[in-house]
This record gives sequence, structure tokens and C-alpha cells, in this order.
Amino acid sequence: MHIFYTPDIDSTQYTLSEEESKHCSRVLRLQKKNLVHLVDGKGGLFVAEILDDHPKRTVLQVLDTQLEYQKRNHHLHIAIAPTKNMDRLEWFLEKATEIGIDEITPIICERSERKEVKTERLEKVVVAAMKQSLKAYIPKINEPITIQKLIAKADDGFKYIAHCLPQDKQEIKDSFKEHQSYTILIGPEGDFSEIEINNALQSGFLPITLGNSRLRTETAALQACFEINYLNR
Amino acid sequence: MHIFYTPDIDSTQYTLSEEESKHCSRVLRLQKKNLVHLVDGKGGLFVAEILDDHPKRTVLQVLDTQLEYQKRNHHLHIAIAPTKNMDRLEWFLEKATEIGIDEITPIICERSERKEVKTERLEKVVVAAMKQSLKAYIPKINEPITIQKLIAKADDGFKYIAHCLPQDKQEIKDSFKEHQSYTILIGPEGDFSEIEINNALQSGFLPITLGNSRLRTETAALQACFEINYLNR
Repeated sequence: MHIFYTPDIDSTQYTLSEEESKHCSRVLRLQKKNLVHLVDGKGGLFVAEILDDHPKRTVLQVLDTQLEYQKRNHHLHIAIAPTKNMDRLEWFLEKATEIGIDEITPIICERSERKEVKTERLEKVVVAAMKQSLKAYIPKINEPITIQKLIAKADDGFKYIAHCLPQDKQEIKDSFKEHQSYTILIGPEGDFSEIEINNALQSGFLPITLGNSRLRTETAALQACFEINYLNR
Repeated sequence: MHIFYTPDIDSTQYTLSEEESKHCSRVLRLQKKNLVHLVDGKGGLFVAEILDDHPKRTVLQVLDTQLEYQKRNHHLHIAIAPTKNMDRLEWFLEKATEIGIDEITPIICERSERKEVKTERLEKVVVAAMKQSLKAYIPKINEPITIQKLIAKADDGFKYIAHCLPQDKQEIKDSFKEHQSYTILIGPEGDFSEIEINNALQSGFLPITLGNSRLRTETAALQACFEINYLNR
């Protein structure tokens, strides 16, 4: 069944935007009485029937509502230094959305080659991935901030920093509790600076290793995402 | 340190190909006495010094040799239906090489939209990923075969099929033994056909789930790769 993202749905009838109406009728060639899925990004998954297949104002009637669809049992926040090549960050977002993530913050670090990120583009990526993987929750993408600010405002859950300096590090599973809130810092291609690492450690971030392999930034972020989801299964 | 892939190295001196000599001197601007890493794809990691920085015949002297560098403690073979969009398969190969994989076979299935694959291109991807992640073993890429042939010739290790039909499935960890040989079948965008699934089950493949998320082909393959490597840590 085709899926539409309807974040502002608030009743049993919904009218698609002009753009999505066009997509619905002209591209997907859906007609009156056809059924579609709607997701609101807040846990709502709906089955709706097309009442009026108007190419500019397609009207849908909600037939079935599921709230908290596949509600996640933990909160995963990955703070990642944007990769020089944006495709790699977008790729990470697509895959993390499929596997399971709740919040992403691009962090600007001392050695970041990329100092700015357009979050609108990233929004499009997670919406597409959410629809493709039939999820009802949309990951929250925060505006980029400096790693210092991120460290200062990080909440009280489990906090990890995945850095590459030779140092005593644990695996995530060594100090793990299920169903918590987790924040994980993933550094830029050139790794975090020593100052950044020390600031994080002083603020209660645990230094972790993601295994023996030398991983690219986006691969390390996905490995962390995989481990947290896996340990919470 | 820069890394060169030298599969045919067989002594303590090695002469780079004309193309790599040019890359070494003109692009990387390396000179006499500079040190480089060499990997042979069979476990050998070498430190070598440039004896002669000739732009067409750069000669290297091996100073240090490590055999079985980061030898893997298991054998992972993923047989995957090539994705319609080749970038997705290449992306999987890059990431799997970083995380850890030993053998990949493109399998042609009933519902495969793509029935052929150029393995030379895939070779380039794994060589680049091997060098980038400083690994000394190169994953073996087999020529594409039909899933029937793959099922028939699959060895005696652990054999899994990740399909989407509603059916009793285990997680990999439920029937897992460490340090074994594992073969995992990952289907095309439209999933395996029932016949293909039944053939696999009859040949001793265990039906597995990779979690609750609906994953793209390449994401499912990487999730399987993550799980096997993680469980063998």
C-alpha cells in the first residue's frame, strides 16, 4: 500500500497538499476507493480510503488508526560530525532511520571539514526512509551546534564518545542497561581533538570502542546505531 | 601512512605498476625514503620504504612484515540479490568490507530486477574499502549465480535465509555458535519467491529475522553482517 506522510493529520478526514495530490493521482494513479497508509511521524499509522481523487485536493477518509505503532523501547540520540561528502551523512540518516534512531544532531568539531549542514535536505531523507520502511515515528533532526554546546546540554542518560585515541575504552555492552536514553558522539574524519575528548569525559561521556575495524565516520555512527538497537531487542 | 594494494608481492622488494607509480609520485608526491603500507589481500601487511621514486617504476623495500594481520575468527559469506540501483550494492560492499566480510556472491532470483552484475566494478569498491579501513584480507567476490545453484553448493556451515514471509523465524543469536562458517541469503526488493524459500529450507537453511524493521535489501545484508561480526567479537 502506498504511504503518505501527514504530520498535521488531526481528524478522520485529510486533504493531501497540492503536490501530494498530484503525486497520488498522476504518478501513482490512485483513484476513488483505493486504500493508502498515512503516517504522522508521531507514532500514528492510519489506513485511509480515497474519497475524492481530485488531482489538486485529494481527500482521504481514515478507516483505521493505530497509535504508537512500533513504539521504540529506548531513545537513541546520535551526535555526528557531518562528513565532508554529504552523501555519506545522508546515507547514514537513511540507514539509521530504517534500523531505528530517535534524534540526530550534526556537531561541529575542531577538525570538521564541513562546518554547515542544510537540515531541510536531511529532513527529506528521513521522511523518505520512514515511509519506505513503514515506520510511524520520524527521527528528530536538530540544527547543527558545536560539540561543546552538545556536551554541555546532553541529558542524564547514558553518554558515550567513540574516539580513536589509544585509551582505555569499553564496548557499549560492557556498561549497558536496556530501555534507557543514549547519546553517542561520533567524530569527524580526523577524529575529535584531545580537548574535545577530555571535555566529553569530564562531562560524564564514557569512551567506547566499536570494534577493531577502522571505520569511516558514517559507518561508525551506523555501527553504534546497530549496537544500541540490537542490545534493546 | 599511504596504503598500496600489492596482491602479487613475493619478496622484500616490490615495484609498483606504472599507474600506481604515477599515483605515488605525482598525486601523493611521495619521495625516496618515504614509508608506505602495503597489503596483499591475503593477510599480509607490510611497511615499505621508497628506494626509487621513479614515476613509472617506483621501487619499494619492505622493512616490516605482518602476516595474518587482524585474521578474522569466522567466515562470513553473504549471498545477496543485486539491487536494481547498483550504488546500493556497492555501498553495501564498502560497508561490509569495513565491518568485516569474507565472501560475497550476487544471486539471481526469480524476482530480481537486475539479472547481471559486473564484478570488476565491485572488486574496485572492496579494494578501496580494504585500503581505507587498513585491512589485509580482501573479501572474495564470486561471479553471479542463480539462487538454486547457490543453495545446491552451499557448504556445511551455518546457513540462514532472511526472508519476509510471515513464518516462524529465529534471530541469528538463537541458534548461534561462535567462530564458524556462515552463509546468509538476502533477497531482492520483492523478496524471495515461495519456491526459493522452500528450496532453501529443504537444504538446511534456517529462516531468520533481522528485527522488526522493514529493511531495504542492502540494509538487511549489512544488518546480517553486523550481527555475525558482533556475535563473534
